[in-house]
Amino acid sequence: MDQKPETFDLAVVGGRCLTLQADFPEISDSLILIKNGQIGWLGEKKDFPGRYRANSTLQTSGKLIIPAFINAHTHLSISLYRGLGTDLKLHDWLRRVIWPLEKEFCTPDHVYLGSCLSLLEMIKSGTGTLANMDFYASHGAKAIDDSGLRGLIGEALFSTPTPSIKDPRDGFNVTADLVNQYKNHPLIHPYVALHAPFTCSGELYQEAAEQAKSWGIKVCSHVAETVSEVEQIQGRYHLTPVEWLDSLGVLNPDFVAIHAVHLTGNDKEILAKRHVGVIHNPHSNMMLGSGICPVPELTSLGVEVGIGTDSASSNNSLSMLFELQTAAKLHKMSTLDPSVLAAHQALNMATIKNAGILGLSKITGHLAKGMSADLIVIDPSTANMIPLHDPYAQIVYSMDNRNIESMIVAGRMIMEKRKILTMDEELILKEVKKWMKVSSVYDFISIKDAAATEY
Amino acid sequence: MDQKPETFDLAVVGGRCLTLQADFPEISDSLILIKNGQIGWLGEKKDFPGRYRANSTLQTSGKLIIPAFINAHTHLSISLYRGLGTDLKLHDWLRRVIWPLEKEFCTPDHVYLGSCLSLLEMIKSGTGTLANMDFYASHGAKAIDDSGLRGLIGEALFSTPTPSIKDPRDGFNVTADLVNQYKNHPLIHPYVALHAPFTCSGELYQEAAEQAKSWGIKVCSHVAETVSEVEQIQGRYHLTPVEWLDSLGVLNPDFVAIHAVHLTGNDKEILAKRHVGVIHNPHSNMMLGSGICPVPELTSLGVEVGIGTDSASSNNSLSMLFELQTAAKLHKMSTLDPSVLAAHQALNMATIKNAGILGLSKITGHLAKGMSADLIVIDPSTANMIPLHDPYAQIVYSMDNRNIESMIVAGRMIMEKRKILTMDEELILKEVKKWMKVSSVYDFISIKDAAATEY
Repeated sequence: MDQKPETFDLAVVGGRCLTLQADFPEISDSLILIKNGQIGWLGEKKDFPGRYRANSTLQTSGKLIIPAFINAHTHLSISLYRGLGTDLKLHDWLRRVIWPLEKEFCTPDHVYLGSCLSLLEMIKSGTGTLANMDFYASHGAKAIDDSGLRGLIGEALFSTPTPSIKDPRDGFNVTADLVNQYKNHPLIHPYVALHAPFTCSGELYQEAAEQAKSWGIKVCSHVAETVSEVEQIQGRYHLTPVEWLDSLGVLNPDFVAIHAVHLTGNDKEILAKRHVGVIHNPHSNMMLGSGICPVPELTSLGVEVGIGTDSASSNNSLSMLFELQTAAKLHKMSTLDPSVLAAHQALNMATIKNAGILGLSKITGHLAKGMSADLIVIDPSTANMIPLHDPYAQIVYSMDNRNIESMIVAGRMIMEKRKILTMDEELILKEVKKWMKVSSVYDFISIKDAAATEY
Repeated sequence: MDQKPETFDLAVVGGRCLTLQADFPEISDSLILIKNGQIGWLGEKKDFPGRYRANSTLQTSGKLIIPAFINAHTHLSISLYRGLGTDLKLHDWLRRVIWPLEKEFCTPDHVYLGSCLSLLEMIKSGTGTLANMDFYASHGAKAIDDSGLRGLIGEALFSTPTPSIKDPRDGFNVTADLVNQYKNHPLIHPYVALHAPFTCSGELYQEAAEQAKSWGIKVCSHVAETVSEVEQIQGRYHLTPVEWLDSLGVLNPDFVAIHAVHLTGNDKEILAKRHVGVIHNPHSNMMLGSGICPVPELTSLGVEVGIGTDSASSNNSLSMLFELQTAAKLHKMSTLDPSVLAAHQALNMATIKNAGILGLSKITGHLAKGMSADLIVIDPSTANMIPLHDPYAQIVYSMDNRNIESMIVAGRMIMEKRKILTMDEELILKEVKKWMKVSSVYDFISIKDAAATEY
């Protein structure tokens, strides 16, 4: 008698799968079987032993299948300010545009709405997991939960009052609440989010490191983003931002340094020695005129470097595809060496590298049995993707967001044939337009005094 | 009795129109009336005096309308090699990949097919006019003519034999044939295309300047693209490429220098003094590790700088949108000044500046009465475009190709709601796939000897 066929929740049948595993990179005619949100089996279709049953099936013949992207750094809510104050420097942009806007408009509802808007864009560009640093982080977390994506969430902590935390001493209580609220959630993972060396005290960094250790979670912070930050910190402490953080004893493998643009040779060695993960945000750093993270040098020293979009107000796109595409080209240009950050390395940064840095390498970032079923289906049949000599090159150098056809996260169909299934796109966009009219936000910033707001 | 209403071929009704005219930048609820390929009237809908009739109407309420993009430098046919030999330096890439491939596969049919493929991608990303440098240029011209776009066409001339010109002395005859063939064509404009200082003799440049003057057309050439080129030219002539060209007496307002990456202070002054137009190709220069054209410096010296994609094999996208988006960010980064290349300036480069440099400023590049009706319609209703505080910022920093919904060139509907009307997309893509199988092109380059081909 035949063995009873195993039943799966979802079968993804056909297509060329780039697993991004080092030793099993590619499946030419793939079968992916999903159960309880995880990959139960994957391999060449013809190699499946026996028979299977699937409660539903996604036909992907002729498509490319890759892991869903991971966006290792963003601020979900401020997509509402996209396009305001462009072409300003970081400190002007923060002080004259973003912070006054947040002071005026940042409410829990606004955070939820802005987060929903960002999540729509992220889904349409293939992001399955994101790390968010925001005010009212629990409201962003609710939006992420509603979207079906995986989120690392951190309440943005400053040493001064913020829109969501009037007394800075409450910061860790807010984070503790997140930790408690989401400790059993399969997709939402809290972390400790510190804004930056120029806005946070040494005591705050030290307490963050201790608390994070006790909770078993990561600490993420903007570090060495601009020349101005480096000058401020050197003025205060006679140390670079990285040296200062190291002198505080807070740099370790659970510390994630976001940006890391302006680094001395010693800074780079410290980051390597302390096994600090670095998150590169090329578009944001370009657009704000901040500079360029020395990714090839850091990598050659053994530093793990991932990638994120930063916010829709400093990028102004939340597409991880565009981000990895630009990263690949940017470092070729800065080193005058086109072999730097080859296509597969750029793709790895946005997937498997990000997963490692964020502590998710056993969950997501590559496709293998036992991993969460987090994948995107790419349609390579449009003119920009043809001829398909090399799928890695095509994804990294030629693809558009529109080629990302479907996305599955933790086994759940999030987008199918460009239609988002988990969120009401039309309603969210309508609400955003309504908010824009009511708040008269454009008029608000055009009359705003230069140094109006300081955290 | 009422005056008889004027009849137009096409009315574009409603929407916010960015004309890119300096003194009449924006129309909030626009009406554009087109007759014989030209704009017969444009302005606020409510300001139209009396009544009009239109043979057909495009409803664009709620959309953005801007001039169609101009791609000031490309090689249409080699989209067939897209994704081959990525992550190689320019000279390796040319000698080991592109030139051997062209030697083996470059035929008139292949040029036509590759050009059609490129044109599909260009239409989908809003390019209405392009400047092509290619072999068998008349076959590329046929593809452009079939597509309904406007094309500057140049046969790529070398001092050595090429796939299409066995005896280099025939080069100007081929160009003369193009000039004669297209002298009365409304949309196809020949120019003299010289490959580069390291592949063309001084005599060739001088004859090109003379011939072009007699025909009243432009000369375009790659100049100072890589360190290697500069070293070769300095080795041969003890001059930089720009100094050498100037010593030949060929630099003038009708000379267009493509790339212009590696320039000395003296080179920049020469370009300014001779009123040479420069075409920036940021993605290609980044991807090949060539470097970065000093756009802000050139502009401050009064040099007119436009922008192009270069080919789909060194970019690997033909989207002018991506090109202008990257340019805007790249120069902010290189100067650490986010006010450099502001959104409207980046948009101008891809439209009105390119038109000026290519000698088309009375035809295309901005929207005004009497100009050719070359425009794109943008759908700003998707998550990445909302909220629409600032349409310039949104186009330059947030838009996707998919937001480009429709395109009109010389009054003809080229694409409507993402459907290309002038070319058979399905058939072309099928032919490309067939070519790819028959030619075994991927196997071909993987066995190719390093220094196989030299023009």
